[in-house]
Amino acid sequence: MNNVAELIQKEHWQGLLVPQKEEELIHALQAAPVVEVADFLAQLSPTKTLGLLTKLSVTTQGAIFAEFDEEYQSILYRLADKKDFANIFSHMPSGHRADFYQKLDGKEQARLLPYLTKKVREDVIALSAYPSETAGSIMSTDFATVLGDRTVKEAIQKLKEDAPSKKMIYYIYVVDANMRMIGFVSLKDLIMADPDEPLAKSLHENFIYAIVDEDQEAVAEKIEKYGLVAMPILNEEGQLVGIVSYDDAIEVIRREQTEDMERFMGIVSDEETADYMKASSFQHFKKRVAWIVGLFVAGFLSTLVIHKHENLLGRITALSMYLPMIAATGGNAGSQAASVVIRALSLGQITLSDWLGIILKEAKVAILLAMFLFVLAFMKVLLLSSFDTLESYNVYRVAFTIGLALSIQVINSTIIGASLPLIAKYFNGDPAVAASPAITTIVDITGMIIYFTVAMAVLF
Amino acid sequence: MNNVAELIQKEHWQGLLVPQKEEELIHALQAAPVVEVADFLAQLSPTKTLGLLTKLSVTTQGAIFAEFDEEYQSILYRLADKKDFANIFSHMPSGHRADFYQKLDGKEQARLLPYLTKKVREDVIALSAYPSETAGSIMSTDFATVLGDRTVKEAIQKLKEDAPSKKMIYYIYVVDANMRMIGFVSLKDLIMADPDEPLAKSLHENFIYAIVDEDQEAVAEKIEKYGLVAMPILNEEGQLVGIVSYDDAIEVIRREQTEDMERFMGIVSDEETADYMKASSFQHFKKRVAWIVGLFVAGFLSTLVIHKHENLLGRITALSMYLPMIAATGGNAGSQAASVVIRALSLGQITLSDWLGIILKEAKVAILLAMFLFVLAFMKVLLLSSFDTLESYNVYRVAFTIGLALSIQVINSTIIGASLPLIAKYFNGDPAVAASPAITTIVDITGMIIYFTVAMAVLF
Repeated sequence: MNNVAELIQKEHWQGLLVPQKEEELIHALQAAPVVEVADFLAQLSPTKTLGLLTKLSVTTQGAIFAEFDEEYQSILYRLADKKDFANIFSHMPSGHRADFYQKLDGKEQARLLPYLTKKVREDVIALSAYPSETAGSIMSTDFATVLGDRTVKEAIQKLKEDAPSKKMIYYIYVVDANMRMIGFVSLKDLIMADPDEPLAKSLHENFIYAIVDEDQEAVAEKIEKYGLVAMPILNEEGQLVGIVSYDDAIEVIRREQTEDMERFMGIVSDEETADYMKASSFQHFKKRVAWIVGLFVAGFLSTLVIHKHENLLGRITALSMYLPMIAATGGNAGSQAASVVIRALSLGQITLSDWLGIILKEAKVAILLAMFLFVLAFMKVLLLSSFDTLESYNVYRVAFTIGLALSIQVINSTIIGASLPLIAKYFNGDPAVAASPAITTIVDITGMIIYFTVAMAVLF
Repeated sequence: MNNVAELIQKEHWQGLLVPQKEEELIHALQAAPVVEVADFLAQLSPTKTLGLLTKLSVTTQGAIFAEFDEEYQSILYRLADKKDFANIFSHMPSGHRADFYQKLDGKEQARLLPYLTKKVREDVIALSAYPSETAGSIMSTDFATVLGDRTVKEAIQKLKEDAPSKKMIYYIYVVDANMRMIGFVSLKDLIMADPDEPLAKSLHENFIYAIVDEDQEAVAEKIEKYGLVAMPILNEEGQLVGIVSYDDAIEVIRREQTEDMERFMGIVSDEETADYMKASSFQHFKKRVAWIVGLFVAGFLSTLVIHKHENLLGRITALSMYLPMIAATGGNAGSQAASVVIRALSLGQITLSDWLGIILKEAKVAILLAMFLFVLAFMKVLLLSSFDTLESYNVYRVAFTIGLALSIQVINSTIIGASLPLIAKYFNGDPAVAASPAITTIVDITGMIIYFTVAMAVLF
C-alpha cells in the first residue's frame, strides 16, 4: 500500500530542487496528484515552474496548468515560448481551456491561435462562445462517441483510438451520423457484453440531458438529483455538444452556496472579487457599501417614528432605554425565521404552495418564543429600574408595556421574516434577497410602531 | 432522441393506475429515473405502492425504496410480508440499507435478520457498526475487487461474475489475498489493455484513500479536491472495507452547508428535525429558543450601559432617539465582516496565519464605510431635529456627536466581526459559531459604551 501522504511530500520535493536531482523530482511530480503539484509549483519562480512543467507528460502539463489561479496562469503565459505554451494549452481539460482563452484579450488570442491545431482551435472558439452561467459555459468536450450501428467490438476499437487523449471516461455516447444523441452505454455495459453483439443491445435510450443554454444551477441540480457522473449537453437540434461532469456540478453548488450566503448578508457578489485576499479593500468596500448605506437610509423611517414620539420619550426615559432591545430581538427572530425558510426552500423541503402551513407553523413557534420573552423582559425591567426614576408611573405598568410590546414584535418579526423569502420567490426572485439586514431594517420600523402604540395604550 | 420529460409523465402514470393497465404502468416505471418513481409512488396508498413495487425488477425495487423518506419506509416495512421485504432490502444500495437497518429497534432487527442471506446479513451488521459522521457511516460496500496477480482477461471475467449485482462501477480495486488494497485499475484501463497482459501493467499503485474512522467532511473534501468518482476506504490494517462515491460527497457538502448557515443564524441543528415541514412547531421552537433567549439575556449588558446614562438621556432626548440606529448599523457591519471571513475560511482562501492581513483589510474597508456614514448620519440628525427640541445644545454639536459615534462603532464592529471567526478557529472551534446574532449582541454593548463616551466628551 502506497500512502498518499508519501506522495505529497512537498518538503521532500523542495529538497530535490537542485539541478542534479531534477530527474528524481520530475519522477515524483509525475506520480503525485495534480492539485498538489500545482500547489507546489505555484510557490516557485515562474521560470523554474515552466522549466519543470515542460518536462512532465503533456496531459499532466495541461492538467496542472488548469489548476493554477488566473494570475499565475497569466504570468506563465506571458513568459512561455508560444509554441511550448500551445502544447500545454492543447492538453488542458477543454472547459478550463476555454475559460482561460476567454480571459485573454483579442490581441493575445490572435497570437495564440496560429500555434493550435485546427481541432483545438475550433473547440476553443466554440466553447468560448457560450454565455456565462449556462450549461455551455461549464461543459467540456472531453467525451467519446460511437455510431449506433456498430458492434461492441467496434465500439471498443473506436474508444481505443479516441480515448487516450481524453480524461477519465464513464459513458460512451451513441450518436447518429449527424451527431444527434441516440443514447448511451456505460463502460461496464461494454465489458459485460459479448464482443460480437450489436451495440444497440446494450443501449440506454432513456437518458437525462440538458440543453446548452440551460442555467448552470439547474444542470448541477439535475446531476445531483439523478446521481449522474456526467450529463450530456445537447443543442436545440438534439446534437451532442458537450458533457458536464459531477465535479463541475460540485463547483457550481459551492459557488451558488457562497452567493446565497453573501446575498443573505447583503453583500454584492461577483466573480472578479471572489477571492478574499486578492480583492482590494476598495473592492470589498464596494461590495458592501450599497447595503450598509441602503439600510442606514431605510432606517430613516424608524428614526422618524421615534422622532414623532419624542415627547413621550422625554417624559418616560425608561421607554427610550428599551428601544434597542425591541429592535435587536425583533431582528434576531426575523432573521432566524427567514434563514430557516430559505434553506427549506433551497433544499426542496417546502414549496410556495405550502405557504399557509409555513406561516401557521412560524406563528406557533413565535408565540412560544413570545411567551418566554414576555416573562424575561418583565423581570429585566423590574430588576434594572427603581421607582423614583420612573417618576409618577408605576414600574409594573412600564414593565408590562415593554414585555407586551416585545412579545408582539417577536411574533410580527417572525411572520415577516418567514414571509419575505416566500414573496420574493413568488415574484420569481431569489428567496435569499430577503437578506438578514433587510429584515432587520423592516422589522425595526414595525417594531417602533408597535412599541409606541402599546405604550400609548397601556400607559395613558 | 427520447426526451426525459416524456419519461417522467406523472399525470400519464396516474392515468394508468387501473388494474387493466398495470402492465403498461410497470413498464413505464421500470424505464423512468428512480427518484421520480419514488416521488410518484410515495403519493399512493402504501398497499398500492407495495403491490407495484414488487412487480418491478429487484434492483429497481431496492433503489426506489432507498429514495423514500424515513416515515414512508417504515410504513411500508410494517405493512410488507417479511419475505418480500427481505428481497427489497437485500437489493438496496448498501449504505442506505445499513442506515435503514440502524433505525429499526432491536426487536425489528431480529425479525428481519433470518430472511437475509449470510452475505447481506454480515454486510448490514458491519456497516451499521460505524459511528455516525465517519467515513464508515457513509460508505457503501458496492465495489468490485480483483487479485493483483491476474491477467486483464481474468479480471474482466471476475467482474462479469461479480458486477451485475452492483450498481455503476468506475474502478476495480486490486487487493492481495488478505483484502489489503494494492492499487486500482479503471474500467477504461481494462478496455484499453491487451486481454492477455498481466493486470499489474495497468495498475495505479498511487492512490488516494481515507481511513474508516475519518470525519465524513474530510472525506467529502478530499473527493472534491482530487476530483474522484469514488474513494476507497481502508481500515487500520490497510484492508479495503468500502467506498464513498461522489454523490455521497455531494450529500455531505449540502448537509454541512445547511449546518453552517443554521449555526450562523443561531439555530441548533440536528438530523431529526432536519425536514422543515416534518418537524413540529415545538421542535422548531426548541431549535431556536436557546439563542434568542441567550442573546436577550446577553443584551442585559447593553441595557445596563444605557441605564447608567439615564440622566444624560433625560437631558438630551435626541441622544436616546439614535440608540437603535447605532446598534443596528454596528450589527450589520459586524455580521457582514464575519460572514465574509467565514466563507473565505471555509473555501480555503485564507488561513489563520493571514490574520493580520485580514484585520488590516477589514479596518480599511471599515474606515471607508465609516466616512460615508459619518456624512449621512450628520445630515440625518440635522434634517430630523429642530433647534428648540434640542434645548440649549447646539444641533451641529449633537449631529457631530452622533456621526462620530457611529463611525467609531462601524470600525469597531467590523473588526470584531472579522476577528471572532478567526478566534473561534484558533481555539479549534467552528468559525461559524461566531454567529450573526452573537456578533450583533456583542457589538451592541461596545456600541453603547462608544456612544456615551463620545457624547460625554463632545457635549460636556
